[in-house]
Amino acid sequence: MGRWEPAAAERLQHAALELFARQGYERTTAAEIAQSVGLSERTFFRHFADKREVLFRGQDEFEAAFLEGLAAVPADAPAMAAVAAAVRAGAAWFVDERRDHSRLRQVVIDANPPLLERERHKMAGLATSLASALRERGVTEPAATLAAESGATVFGIAFGLWIGEGEQRSLREIADSVLAELAAVTGTP
Amino acid sequence: MGRWEPAAAERLQHAALELFARQGYERTTAAEIAQSVGLSERTFFRHFADKREVLFRGQDEFEAAFLEGLAAVPADAPAMAAVAAAVRAGAAWFVDERRDHSRLRQVVIDANPPLLERERHKMAGLATSLASALRERGVTEPAATLAAESGATVFGIAFGLWIGEGEQRSLREIADSVLAELAAVTGTP
Repeated sequence: MGRWEPAAAERLQHAALELFARQGYERTTAAEIAQSVGLSERTFFRHFADKREVLFRGQDEFEAAFLEGLAAVPADAPAMAAVAAAVRAGAAWFVDERRDHSRLRQVVIDANPPLLERERHKMAGLATSLASALRERGVTEPAATLAAESGATVFGIAFGLWIGEGEQRSLREIADSVLAELAAVTGTP
Repeated sequence: MGRWEPAAAERLQHAALELFARQGYERTTAAEIAQSVGLSERTFFRHFADKREVLFRGQDEFEAAFLEGLAAVPADAPAMAAVAAAVRAGAAWFVDERRDHSRLRQVVIDANPPLLERERHKMAGLATSLASALRERGVTEPAATLAAESGATVFGIAFGLWIGEGEQRSLREIADSVLAELAAVTGTP
């Protein structure tokens, strides 16, 4: 890829989010997104397979961040300690500079049921990958799935708080607090 | 409704599951289901709004079983104790006589992505209802959502084990064991 390409992708992504939020995802075309930043439709499709990819790009990196966090934990650590490390690493991936982008993206996704569905599918995929990584470390079922699903739930709650109006804490800080709350809530049956 | 109607609904439901499992959900029509048990298409539509309802009928009762279990717990009990009671009540709703039906239904659902989607949506709705019931009892967030989502995860895992080949334990017994595992896994951060 040429030097100009990352910049073009970023400009397209930002313009797309603005258009999706303002006039609706369905009503926005790839050509329109490209035109709004002085680029051609062809350039758009050089960066994104389709309109939806603008919203779901980087999904592999997102999951990889969690899995790398998990892999860094000693093999003999409890399952939930490994998942907590994964959640913290995933949370750290969302630096504060991304917060406005993430907020706008969520507005677009919440307004469109098929996109919301895609997002849920992505989170379900994250839980499946975490459970699989735990089983590879020797964690048995149902502990692996319980820990992985709990981690995905914690991340989802923390993320929702992070993009909330007026929230100042980092996602990493919020995730720590929700992890502590999980232990308090579910550890006392 | 006349006396004959519950019996007809049950016969239609059983015939539908058999046909869905054998020849696929998409390829089976309401008329075919009705004909296979000597009833008319009109009778089918007197009992079910559409083909899909054969698989998702009773959803309100399913959720009501959980909520009644939760409501029976003293108001000052910890959130997770209330959710555990909800899960046990929901599990008790699936008596062993339903196991074969549930197994066949799951085969049909797993083979059809839109049905699987519908099923996931139903489980997400259960978690949302449980969280809402907890908030009404004064449980704050994120504890309410953490407890409710944990309950839905436990139920999902227990249900999957219950319909597993050769499984003999009742869903209620399995749910108890997964609830205990949840406390062990997530309570030790």
